[in-house]
Amino acid sequence: MSGEDEKKRAGSGDPAPPSPGSRRPGGRTARTRAAVRDAVLTGLTELGYPGLTVEYVAEHSGVHKTTLYRRWGDVEGLLADALDLAGEDTWLPPDTGSLEGDLRALAHEIVTSFTDSATASAGSALIAAGFQSERAATALRAYYTERFARCEAIVERAVHRGELAAPGGAVDAGALVRAVPAPLFFRLFVTREPVDAALADQAAAAALAAARAGVFTTDEPAGAAPGAPERAG
Amino acid sequence: MSGEDEKKRAGSGDPAPPSPGSRRPGGRTARTRAAVRDAVLTGLTELGYPGLTVEYVAEHSGVHKTTLYRRWGDVEGLLADALDLAGEDTWLPPDTGSLEGDLRALAHEIVTSFTDSATASAGSALIAAGFQSERAATALRAYYTERFARCEAIVERAVHRGELAAPGGAVDAGALVRAVPAPLFFRLFVTREPVDAALADQAAAAALAAARAGVFTTDEPAGAAPGAPERAG
Repeated sequence: MSGEDEKKRAGSGDPAPPSPGSRRPGGRTARTRAAVRDAVLTGLTELGYPGLTVEYVAEHSGVHKTTLYRRWGDVEGLLADALDLAGEDTWLPPDTGSLEGDLRALAHEIVTSFTDSATASAGSALIAAGFQSERAATALRAYYTERFARCEAIVERAVHRGELAAPGGAVDAGALVRAVPAPLFFRLFVTREPVDAALADQAAAAALAAARAGVFTTDEPAGAAPGAPERAG
Repeated sequence: MSGEDEKKRAGSGDPAPPSPGSRRPGGRTARTRAAVRDAVLTGLTELGYPGLTVEYVAEHSGVHKTTLYRRWGDVEGLLADALDLAGEDTWLPPDTGSLEGDLRALAHEIVTSFTDSATASAGSALIAAGFQSERAATALRAYYTERFARCEAIVERAVHRGELAAPGGAVDAGALVRAVPAPLFFRLFVTREPVDAALADQAAAAALAAARAGVFTTDEPAGAAPGAPERAG
């Protein structure tokens, strides 16, 4: 492909906002980065974090070892960038028109992605790396923070529709959207028990029931709370 | 210590029921097994599963390498037995007199054990091993299955006290007791976010609210359900 083609590609709107400091999407740099990311994920899946080497990534990405060392530093840098890149996608949480529908769809999406062997192994390998590398753990935290910030749209829409109110405070949207995946990931990666569609429904229903009961609230009241101190006359 | 002393020790009642096939507790065999288990956990913490070797366990347990190979086979066998042994303790779930109190105490116990560096690292290393070894994953599943079976006593007592009823079915005690740790483990080992006492309270409250809303039910009705078919007259 010519340099001209690459420039055209770079301009064809990928709606994902690039992270601060990243090159513009679609160009040679972006393709190199994606090839490196793919090699990192393949390596993690095949060898696990302890077995992954810069040499392996060079061989499987076609990017020269010296380039990898110069731009990513080491295996931890490669791994962190793979997670950064995963966070730059255009994924949006489900928007079904109801809180219950959205939470349920979110739960089913998780079960599907971790029971499909094509996507499950890379995800599992990234979570596993968090146990072995502090930098991977930090990158995972950043990835999930950003991902759940997107999920909070589910809660904002529900509050806007009047489906959800937090008595005496604001809804803790972050806690609510984390409540849905928690029982699924717990079984997948801690207790090593099977997950299925019925468990996805249960996870969504449990989060919804807790939200309706007012469990997920922050201390800060939303707007002017009743009982706020009166202005001195 | 003489053989006589060992025999006396063996008889002094440890109330933990030995697992099928295990030697009687307290004797030389039990002490060897505990020493091996300790070396396995230390090794997992220091080196991670991929770095753990039979040689390391021999050196740190004082048990000869040939004995380890003969009785445990390999590293996977050592790891599986460490988990089996962890499951043979006398731990019982909290019994505070109320469902809410029990769930909350359980949540706090988990947060405490994973924020205390003395206990956290071994637990984390065992969970990490589940990513790298199918046999470790199987042993983890067995460990948690047994552990949550003990926790079901919390739910049984609550049903007995009339605190909890499942409309149209029996309470799914297993799902309810797993709902408490799920958001804590999810943050500890997947999203890598901090957990604290407030989050423990929230996890317990969410599980309780979902239980009260009837989310955790099995399909099988408990006892004679209303609307059961009438006897033909």
